[in-house]
Amino acid sequence: MLIAVMEKSASVKDIGAVLRHIEERGLKPYLSRGDEQTQVGCLGAPEEDDLREELAGLDGVSSAFVSKSPFKLASREFRPESSSFKVGPAAVGEKQLTVIAGPCAVESADQLAQVGELLKDLGVPMIRGGAFKPRTSPYDFQGLGEEGLQLLAQARARYGLRVVTECLKPSDVELVAQYSDVIQIGARNMQNFALLQEVGRARIPVLLKRGMMSSLKEFLLSAEYILSQGNEQVALCERGIRTFETMTRNTLDIAAVPVLKRLTHLPVIIDPSHAAGDRELVPALSLAAVAAGADGLIIEVHPKPEEAVSDGPQSMTLPGFRKLYETLKPVAESVGRTL
Amino acid sequence: MLIAVMEKSASVKDIGAVLRHIEERGLKPYLSRGDEQTQVGCLGAPEEDDLREELAGLDGVSSAFVSKSPFKLASREFRPESSSFKVGPAAVGEKQLTVIAGPCAVESADQLAQVGELLKDLGVPMIRGGAFKPRTSPYDFQGLGEEGLQLLAQARARYGLRVVTECLKPSDVELVAQYSDVIQIGARNMQNFALLQEVGRARIPVLLKRGMMSSLKEFLLSAEYILSQGNEQVALCERGIRTFETMTRNTLDIAAVPVLKRLTHLPVIIDPSHAAGDRELVPALSLAAVAAGADGLIIEVHPKPEEAVSDGPQSMTLPGFRKLYETLKPVAESVGRTL
Amino acid sequence: MLIAVMEKSASVKDIGAVLRHIEERGLKPYLSRGDEQTQVGCLGAPEEDDLREELAGLDGVSSAFVSKSPFKLASREFRPESSSFKVGPAAVGEKQLTVIAGPCAVESADQLAQVGELLKDLGVPMIRGGAFKPRTSPYDFQGLGEEGLQLLAQARARYGLRVVTECLKPSDVELVAQYSDVIQIGARNMQNFALLQEVGRARIPVLLKRGMMSSLKEFLLSAEYILSQGNEQVALCERGIRTFETMTRNTLDIAAVPVLKRLTHLPVIIDPSHAAGDRELVPALSLAAVAAGADGLIIEVHPKPEEAVSDGPQSMTLPGFRKLYETLKPVAESVGRTL
Amino acid sequence: MLIAVMEKSASVKDIGAVLRHIEERGLKPYLSRGDEQTQVGCLGAPEEDDLREELAGLDGVSSAFVSKSPFKLASREFRPESSSFKVGPAAVGEKQLTVIAGPCAVESADQLAQVGELLKDLGVPMIRGGAFKPRTSPYDFQGLGEEGLQLLAQARARYGLRVVTECLKPSDVELVAQYSDVIQIGARNMQNFALLQEVGRARIPVLLKRGMMSSLKEFLLSAEYILSQGNEQVALCERGIRTFETMTRNTLDIAAVPVLKRLTHLPVIIDPSHAAGDRELVPALSLAAVAAGADGLIIEVHPKPEEAVSDGPQSMTLPGFRKLYETLKPVAESVGRTL
Repeated sequence: MLIAVMEKSASVKDIGAVLRHIEERGLKPYLSRGDEQTQVGCLGAPEEDDLREELAGLDGVSSAFVSKSPFKLASREFRPESSSFKVGPAAVGEKQLTVIAGPCAVESADQLAQVGELLKDLGVPMIRGGAFKPRTSPYDFQGLGEEGLQLLAQARARYGLRVVTECLKPSDVELVAQYSDVIQIGARNMQNFALLQEVGRARIPVLLKRGMMSSLKEFLLSAEYILSQGNEQVALCERGIRTFETMTRNTLDIAAVPVLKRLTHLPVIIDPSHAAGDRELVPALSLAAVAAGADGLIIEVHPKPEEAVSDGPQSMTLPGFRKLYETLKPVAESVGRTL
Repeated sequence: MLIAVMEKSASVKDIGAVLRHIEERGLKPYLSRGDEQTQVGCLGAPEEDDLREELAGLDGVSSAFVSKSPFKLASREFRPESSSFKVGPAAVGEKQLTVIAGPCAVESADQLAQVGELLKDLGVPMIRGGAFKPRTSPYDFQGLGEEGLQLLAQARARYGLRVVTECLKPSDVELVAQYSDVIQIGARNMQNFALLQEVGRARIPVLLKRGMMSSLKEFLLSAEYILSQGNEQVALCERGIRTFETMTRNTLDIAAVPVLKRLTHLPVIIDPSHAAGDRELVPALSLAAVAAGADGLIIEVHPKPEEAVSDGPQSMTLPGFRKLYETLKPVAESVGRTL
Repeated sequence: MLIAVMEKSASVKDIGAVLRHIEERGLKPYLSRGDEQTQVGCLGAPEEDDLREELAGLDGVSSAFVSKSPFKLASREFRPESSSFKVGPAAVGEKQLTVIAGPCAVESADQLAQVGELLKDLGVPMIRGGAFKPRTSPYDFQGLGEEGLQLLAQARARYGLRVVTECLKPSDVELVAQYSDVIQIGARNMQNFALLQEVGRARIPVLLKRGMMSSLKEFLLSAEYILSQGNEQVALCERGIRTFETMTRNTLDIAAVPVLKRLTHLPVIIDPSHAAGDRELVPALSLAAVAAGADGLIIEVHPKPEEAVSDGPQSMTLPGFRKLYETLKPVAESVGRTL
Repeated sequence: MLIAVMEKSASVKDIGAVLRHIEERGLKPYLSRGDEQTQVGCLGAPEEDDLREELAGLDGVSSAFVSKSPFKLASREFRPESSSFKVGPAAVGEKQLTVIAGPCAVESADQLAQVGELLKDLGVPMIRGGAFKPRTSPYDFQGLGEEGLQLLAQARARYGLRVVTECLKPSDVELVAQYSDVIQIGARNMQNFALLQEVGRARIPVLLKRGMMSSLKEFLLSAEYILSQGNEQVALCERGIRTFETMTRNTLDIAAVPVLKRLTHLPVIIDPSHAAGDRELVPALSLAAVAAGADGLIIEVHPKPEEAVSDGPQSMTLPGFRKLYETLKPVAESVGRTL
């Protein structure tokens, strides 16, 4: 990737000239605008060195360089400052942590109402819940489908929440986007490239979960599939990887937080519930995630975990979540974040 | 799953009566016809014990039982005899081993011609080659698409081969089926349930690859997604799992062969190329797979591996594959198989 | 294990009577004295139920029960309250976190002096450093041996520090104990049972590192080898496990903290340096460990990491460690600990 | 490592002169004598290039080169031809496969007699059995100790067998060597370097098992610990590695056979019993191992597996082993080996 670094004093006109210069070469420019630094990137230039020199000579360009990193638009080289995006009144990737909570699967209006009331009361901005469930067995509950989406939309309206929900196939992206604020791409679909490209073409924030068997390199390249289609609103979610240890459902790769923060500007969210597979472990993992520098948490909460159609053992009770939420505050503040 | 075991002497009429009896209860019967044993299965009966007694009392039924296995249609309980299916003149799952060879990606007519000629010469019945490539990075070669399918169809016609090729998304199943004889579901899509259901509704053989970090239980349940849609022509392909060892690309789980053979009636194919990631290791792994009881092999072969757009290091040369093919024969015979 | 729970009001005489009763049956009693609860355990009773009833009837015994847990002396059933032990003026397992820092290998008096001065200045109570190094290759530096131990002892005297150092074989336990305050059993020796038994017979605190390939169950059973020989001063150290991810040297299993805290009363220390293999990641992992509830940290620090004979890339510089130490304080306080 | 390649016509005197030349430089020469090629190696030469030129100029030396491989004495560079060693009338590493069978733990004279008789009858040359057992829990059966060694020695004498048994600590090497023909270093001790050095100083063949989560590189470097002490009689044993798959106890890394064969001259033995953890899977894995090019098998056999004190589920019955042995023969012959 060829990257032109703009001077801090560069004008909008200067930036526009760089974009046009790239387009005139028949290439697509990518713009990274930060508070401190603006950069313009360009992929696939046939004679990169020539173009680099041309760009370096334009007004307002302080330097231009070629990055050999496998990560392009996701990399800190392209965008040195952390990126963030708005989800309604909230934002993902800023000083205030993003907390998302809710049941594994949408089961009923009553279930969502109980969760929604608690979230509203605590000031948690986003609710999660699956309407389409990717289940290992074809004979397990596959979700309520569009009815589940409608229930989520009702909870959104009633409790002033934003909705995060999963989409399983390219042909459903439009439908899911109608009812939700953030589309989740689940761990099993992290390398479903057709689906990644489809949400890349949509203009809705995406929560991309790491495959339980995927390296961080693969994870970033999957994000790149979305970014390269023009959708810049991507958050990465570590949710535990598969290892030999059996006392937890998966092994939370807490080091993914600083590793990703070094490599990419994208926000990083931690899912302690799927990592642990056990609600008793969720508080400790949540605190650890915040201390490690995560931008947020996505936590499974259910009014009656023992009756949940899926993921009961890892779902927190409502009082349990309330208590966790209180303990999060001092830890967030101790690392310079707010809740 | 409720399973009715037919007497060996049961007539077609008896079997039909069992099927009808199940349908009259509003349920869908599944028929397993073997040379030695015929069974009828039924899923989701609300009062399984009552129905079990009813079926046990029908003419030609020797016994009826309830299986608690998570695997239903894929299980040996439902079909005690190994299953097989025809692919043109060849068959997968019978005494003669199924060998499939060809390049990772379809690159050109000339490439396929060189491979095709060798396969015809050796008597290898099936050619592989990807037209749609699931690549980790969006900036890598994504395959020739429909043009690649056309090149495969030409090679099929010219060299009398059958074609195995991958399909990446539900909306492409029909297109891929037009040009091929077996649809491959790749490792990254093993839990792309929308895709599994779509190939389940098609009436074309499926080669389902194990996810590189999927358990054998998950693997069989993914096969179950296809079977439960009515497509019985499924072969399972072990292609190496992800472990800590870095001297090979993946770790071939050779024990998957006897484990799967015990649990399921479906044919088991081994892909030594992706497991090893290194052509020098492919012969030893191929011999091991045959000795362990695999029903076949799928091997990457390229006329000029050093120029391959993908998977060059693990692709065998044409002379290398010819030599391997010769060494396979005595090992196959030593375990009662033919080539 | 048969466990007699003493009444809170039980006298020393009552406890003594229970111990004697067990001894009179030819068995060995184990005493767990806590601030809140005192219990007496006994292993291998041939007729457990009879003995349980006898003990339950003794003065001062509130109840007696049989635990089927594979963990005996290490379990929370045997000792409901967290255990701790003194190391000089410091203690491991109490409210104040235990920080241990120092180089991978002892290299010179000057190296230890530079580290020792910093630790003294910061108030860090313990220094680590290997005199006997378990190296993967026989041709790599194997440590300074007894000379290294002497250098550690000098640093101890000069800077008022306590020494943690590794012992590799049973016949060295006595020697290492002469020069150190805590004996470390390294990851590669977690299942070197002869060595575990030998340190179990010694009366010196032990820092037992988890094998990089060991489950938490195996880890606790290795601790049990030490405890069952009579040495109760054992701290458990998680230092990363081996997984498929290659961006870090190992994967820190942060969930090990709450899992171990639930199962065992033993203190839990985290080694972020070996887990990460990269000094830049150590601060985030250290904060995460403290937030998750760890009782302490063991961190590699070297005056000149680029010249270290081993583990240079993961060793923090002196200023880097100083900075980390400052950021630890607010996080420790946010979870009710002190530094 | 500096390696001098001798001419095929080089005399004993020529070889002696090379050895002496190295010794005169204060270094230790290592001799690799093969049927086809003789080489002399030398480690740690301070000015390698100078010495290389000196050796290259000596009579009978065809060339001299410096190898940068991390493996020295174990490498094919040092010894291009496969090595083998005698164990009584049998040999490990030659055309005839080495089969070793017997119980996990020595339990009684009767147990060994039943196994011994079968082995004698089949012509299996070596019996295995543990007298010192490395058990995960201190409360499990730890083996009969020296009494177990005596029982093994009796079986050896009575049935004309050779004995393979494990040694757990450096101070036991002499004792174990008195009663056995091959000392086994178990998986848990693969990186017990003190033990490796001790058996390296002994003059008895060693069966070194791969750690269940050790890389092949680490495995070879552990062998190097033994070789570098002067003991050249080392066989490598792959016994399954730890992965996420739970249907087998471990995952047999069958690719270890061709990978090791490429890197090292040492014989490679496969232990299908520990890999599988299930006797039903042992035959398929045994056949696969032989087809892949292994030099031998070590298989657990017990007269009454259901009463075994350890590893019962993976121990074959006597008739089961007899049947497996018969099926091995044609597979061995199909790859040019004998039984």
